[in-house]
Amino acid sequence: MPRPRSAAPSATPSSSPSAASERGDTRLGPVRHSPDAEAAFAPAAVAVDGGFWDARREVNGRVSIPQGPGLLESAGNLRNLRLAAGTDKGEFQGAYPFVDSDVYKWLEAAAWQLARTPDGDLADDVARIVSLVAGAQQDDGYLNTWFQLLKGGERYLDLRWGHELYCAGHLIQAAVAHHRATGSSELLDVAVKFADHIDSVFGLPGSGKPLDGVDGHPEVETALVELYRETGEHRYLDLAGYFVDRFGHGLLGGEVYCQDRVPLREATNVEGHAVRQLYLLAAATDLAVETGDGGLRTAAERLWEAMTTTKTHITGGLGAHHDEEDFGDPYELPNERAYCETCAAIASVQWSWRMALLTGEARYSDLVERTLYNGFLAGVSLDGERWLYVNPLQVRDGHTDAGGDQSARRTRWFRCACCPPNVMRLLAGLEHYLASGDDGGLQIHQYVTGRYTGLLDGTGIVVSAETDYPWQGTIGLTVEESPADRPWTLSLRIPQWCGDYRVRVGDSVYDETDAPVTDGWLRLERTWAPGDRIVLDLGIEPRLTAADPRVDAVRGCVAIERGPLVYCLEGVDHPGGGLDDMVLDTTRPLAVKHRPDLLGGVVTVLAAGRRRNIADAGWWPYRTADAGAGDDGQPADEPLELTAIPYYAWANRQDGSMRVWLPTS
Amino acid sequence: MPRPRSAAPSATPSSSPSAASERGDTRLGPVRHSPDAEAAFAPAAVAVDGGFWDARREVNGRVSIPQGPGLLESAGNLRNLRLAAGTDKGEFQGAYPFVDSDVYKWLEAAAWQLARTPDGDLADDVARIVSLVAGAQQDDGYLNTWFQLLKGGERYLDLRWGHELYCAGHLIQAAVAHHRATGSSELLDVAVKFADHIDSVFGLPGSGKPLDGVDGHPEVETALVELYRETGEHRYLDLAGYFVDRFGHGLLGGEVYCQDRVPLREATNVEGHAVRQLYLLAAATDLAVETGDGGLRTAAERLWEAMTTTKTHITGGLGAHHDEEDFGDPYELPNERAYCETCAAIASVQWSWRMALLTGEARYSDLVERTLYNGFLAGVSLDGERWLYVNPLQVRDGHTDAGGDQSARRTRWFRCACCPPNVMRLLAGLEHYLASGDDGGLQIHQYVTGRYTGLLDGTGIVVSAETDYPWQGTIGLTVEESPADRPWTLSLRIPQWCGDYRVRVGDSVYDETDAPVTDGWLRLERTWAPGDRIVLDLGIEPRLTAADPRVDAVRGCVAIERGPLVYCLEGVDHPGGGLDDMVLDTTRPLAVKHRPDLLGGVVTVLAAGRRRNIADAGWWPYRTADAGAGDDGQPADEPLELTAIPYYAWANRQDGSMRVWLPTS
Repeated sequence: MPRPRSAAPSATPSSSPSAASERGDTRLGPVRHSPDAEAAFAPAAVAVDGGFWDARREVNGRVSIPQGPGLLESAGNLRNLRLAAGTDKGEFQGAYPFVDSDVYKWLEAAAWQLARTPDGDLADDVARIVSLVAGAQQDDGYLNTWFQLLKGGERYLDLRWGHELYCAGHLIQAAVAHHRATGSSELLDVAVKFADHIDSVFGLPGSGKPLDGVDGHPEVETALVELYRETGEHRYLDLAGYFVDRFGHGLLGGEVYCQDRVPLREATNVEGHAVRQLYLLAAATDLAVETGDGGLRTAAERLWEAMTTTKTHITGGLGAHHDEEDFGDPYELPNERAYCETCAAIASVQWSWRMALLTGEARYSDLVERTLYNGFLAGVSLDGERWLYVNPLQVRDGHTDAGGDQSARRTRWFRCACCPPNVMRLLAGLEHYLASGDDGGLQIHQYVTGRYTGLLDGTGIVVSAETDYPWQGTIGLTVEESPADRPWTLSLRIPQWCGDYRVRVGDSVYDETDAPVTDGWLRLERTWAPGDRIVLDLGIEPRLTAADPRVDAVRGCVAIERGPLVYCLEGVDHPGGGLDDMVLDTTRPLAVKHRPDLLGGVVTVLAAGRRRNIADAGWWPYRTADAGAGDDGQPADEPLELTAIPYYAWANRQDGSMRVWLPTS
Repeated sequence: MPRPRSAAPSATPSSSPSAASERGDTRLGPVRHSPDAEAAFAPAAVAVDGGFWDARREVNGRVSIPQGPGLLESAGNLRNLRLAAGTDKGEFQGAYPFVDSDVYKWLEAAAWQLARTPDGDLADDVARIVSLVAGAQQDDGYLNTWFQLLKGGERYLDLRWGHELYCAGHLIQAAVAHHRATGSSELLDVAVKFADHIDSVFGLPGSGKPLDGVDGHPEVETALVELYRETGEHRYLDLAGYFVDRFGHGLLGGEVYCQDRVPLREATNVEGHAVRQLYLLAAATDLAVETGDGGLRTAAERLWEAMTTTKTHITGGLGAHHDEEDFGDPYELPNERAYCETCAAIASVQWSWRMALLTGEARYSDLVERTLYNGFLAGVSLDGERWLYVNPLQVRDGHTDAGGDQSARRTRWFRCACCPPNVMRLLAGLEHYLASGDDGGLQIHQYVTGRYTGLLDGTGIVVSAETDYPWQGTIGLTVEESPADRPWTLSLRIPQWCGDYRVRVGDSVYDETDAPVTDGWLRLERTWAPGDRIVLDLGIEPRLTAADPRVDAVRGCVAIERGPLVYCLEGVDHPGGGLDDMVLDTTRPLAVKHRPDLLGGVVTVLAAGRRRNIADAGWWPYRTADAGAGDDGQPADEPLELTAIPYYAWANRQDGSMRVWLPTS
């Protein structure tokens, strides 16, 4: 499948470890193509300095990330590293072989945070923990405290569940971030040493390597691609390619859970453990970018479309089952038992962003937007202190659960603490997922208040933006820097949910007719000059959304959405009863109400509804369908004013019922 | 709560181990009240000799039960016993500490089978396996091969998960059955020795017993009550009462899964692991029967009603979650992820039958009937060779699963093989759950072809029955024996699903007006004489059934039922596509078709429907609700003839889709 070669990546010529950070390249981030990449689009730099995401990131930087070291200390993760280094005494603490990865994910988050807002205390914490990691590494590069401390140092005997390469992957990702953000190579040296060790162990039969295998949890694959990008060492890319193509060949017993049922290139839909599937697909996409592998690209495109069409919740949440944390069947999208692990939302953003960079198609960023504002952001409380591992779309009246990680109640930390530091790292590095550039101009994927910076023939393009998005649909853009006398295209993503927009360029106003959207992009080609103003107005009226009729779980229901936000009802806003008996009246208009006092400031959506009075039918809740038709003998329903809040803000006041999908009859 | 004392139990005066079987008491069975019981109703004997259940039991006796020893040998269960006895060499085989219970459940099944159809080979197998069990028992009575072989003989250190008392319970149940059915006390002696050991270990603080605790999986409690009934030893009843009341006090860490969150007497709804909950409730009901404990009775009545009203699937299936195998929230009754473990259906029958005997209320047998014909019977294939552990109400088009015990595909045996021998024992002893007697006469709870035998003032009442139920609604009854000149009441249960019946007694015909049903019973008091004929006609037209609107999972759907049978569609009957896109037309009448050629002979229900043609909406399956209203641009639907089969018979032809609840729009 031929694709245009991009000139943009060639504008970032360095492949040596230090050059990228030394020359102040603004394209720092967790996804940076190598100079040889076969992608049309490269990430563009964005500085977020106000608005919705700035507020969420402020809490992340002020509360969540600084709490990390204390939580990692009390959960034992840091002491395990000291035990492995021989500098502390005691017992290994932690229930899983992947506890080290919590530390690495936190380090990655802290690195992105330091790059934006240098802070002495945080820098000290990072330096201290980097030293702990380095101290725990074994002479030959291996590092995993579980196996070093509990398994007598035996390695790679349980690749299905051992998570050794998974942890290595997070270590490498953290090291790349640390190097890009701080210029220090201390952690990168650890990562390189570990990667070299892995490369000396794993390979095809006949390669002379002792072990042909893959890790039960993909993650090292994307990390190795990034390490290749950071160091220029092609062995790491080759190793990532080897791993990706060795899934599906029975090395993990053929388990679908571990992505081993079928090779990715032959798969027809996403399956198995959701996070595992998505990390593997992100790696496949990275490889397609770097190697031009059309087979991997075709598979990734096919699987992305199958996933969105049949296995994605309206919130962008992924994963239908608590049991196995896996995808369900097509259109199996339950509400109260939606799993929608926070980590799966993060993995989906990571994969879709890579797909956007590979293809330039706006739909991938449509899903990124939906996921960020809904399925992802619900994972952290507004105060940055409590977390959701699973993100259900419904909590029933009188809900009880046994607590624990998979509770529908926010929790301070988890026994399996994968999600909190994963949220931290995505929020801290969020600016890396918002815009791209190619040799024709700049593409704005996500709208934030801040500055978008691209490069065109080595000259900077800077566009500043101001917006109250997602509360308002107006985005004001100003060209700050532009090459003189060189036309280029400013591409604005018109979100998939938006049926109505206008754009003003200078004094001219255009709508769908005279500024059409192609493939999700509104492309404005001009010879831009500093001071040029563009105002995009996205119609953001609240709307009722229905699902494909094959989604059995929501038959007879609609959801309220406004802009990119999915809304929900919470019991706390509807006193005098729960939500199990509510009905939405779809014939009455929706209204919006700005509530600066509520949940950190939200726009609520008000709707008319009623509360069903359900007659006591005795001990059996099923009855002949035509009996009682016409509501004979049923008590009259009671009117009920419905107040919907953004889904991401649920569970921030008190425990209680919640629902996204609202019955209409 | 005062209840009438029954004279009937006093007619079975013996409390010595041997007397019951010696005098040929026909009230053999897994639930037999002691002479002191505070229950109004005692089980009545039934001989099933034709019709629906006779056919299922014939397969059970000819195929399923005889295969047991071979399967238990190959799965390692029998060798584990030999290893514990020191008569064989090798490694313990089995993944769970409760593998011994598979043997005991099979022994119980085989005992009931022998009582009905003596068979030399089966008798030999039973004798051989009884010897294996006896040989494995330790000198002080303890017996659990997992702990004896793998844990160095350490005992009762992990009551949450150890299942030692659970296994003891199944051993005791098997021993009681073996004694009642064969008169042999060989296994009963083992059980008594084990029970005495348990009684020497467990007790309240201050009782002088070393351990205050309960087993994480209730089962020993009902068994101890039965052992008391069989031996007359009151200590066993006291021990059962101690155990039942020690749940809910934190002895198991307060885990809801293990029934330890709250004492049963204070609970407001069923919760936690479904089988554990139901076995505990069966024991509480047995205790209420034997001791007249009004608090336990009140709790059991409250919890039964809460369960049926809010947590029971239309099939009688119980348990909403794969994860934890537990009950969900009220009205959380999913379809494709219904757990509905076969063992939970069995436990529900056992509990409800005890409730029927305690209270005399017909509704308990309504649930027994529904469960037997649907949620229970689906657990075994028509050929008696393959099993379902979970019983979903929907399998989607293109369903995939990872196989294993919880697969929606029938399986030859399970790693956790709790269900198959549990099915065998219920089928083999089914005659014990069908009728009761009190001092006023005979109550027929379930309609079968055969002979119902009660006792009145020491004189036999015998009523024979002939019926093609559930395919036909006509039950012909003949009084065969009756005390002379002594009026008594023949009570016929009019099923909760039946809105229309007639009864003919001799030449007189009565309907709802002149033979009213009170509390589910049609009571015919006469001075009956041998030869008297009664013909009951239950209206059995197929019907559409809807659920309480709070059951979100089935909004906009109905189920097809006929008589006690729940129906389903299977993909195999609807070629040219799956079932995910089907719609039922509720305005067209249902038709029935007798199909002696199909699935061992069933009545199918035919309905009109259509197959939706769903326009390709691109990659996102959600759209604004009012867009496309009126089906603009939607391709026309295609007519579809729907063929529904009884749910119990699904998954007997080929893998494929299935659904009980049918969308209507």
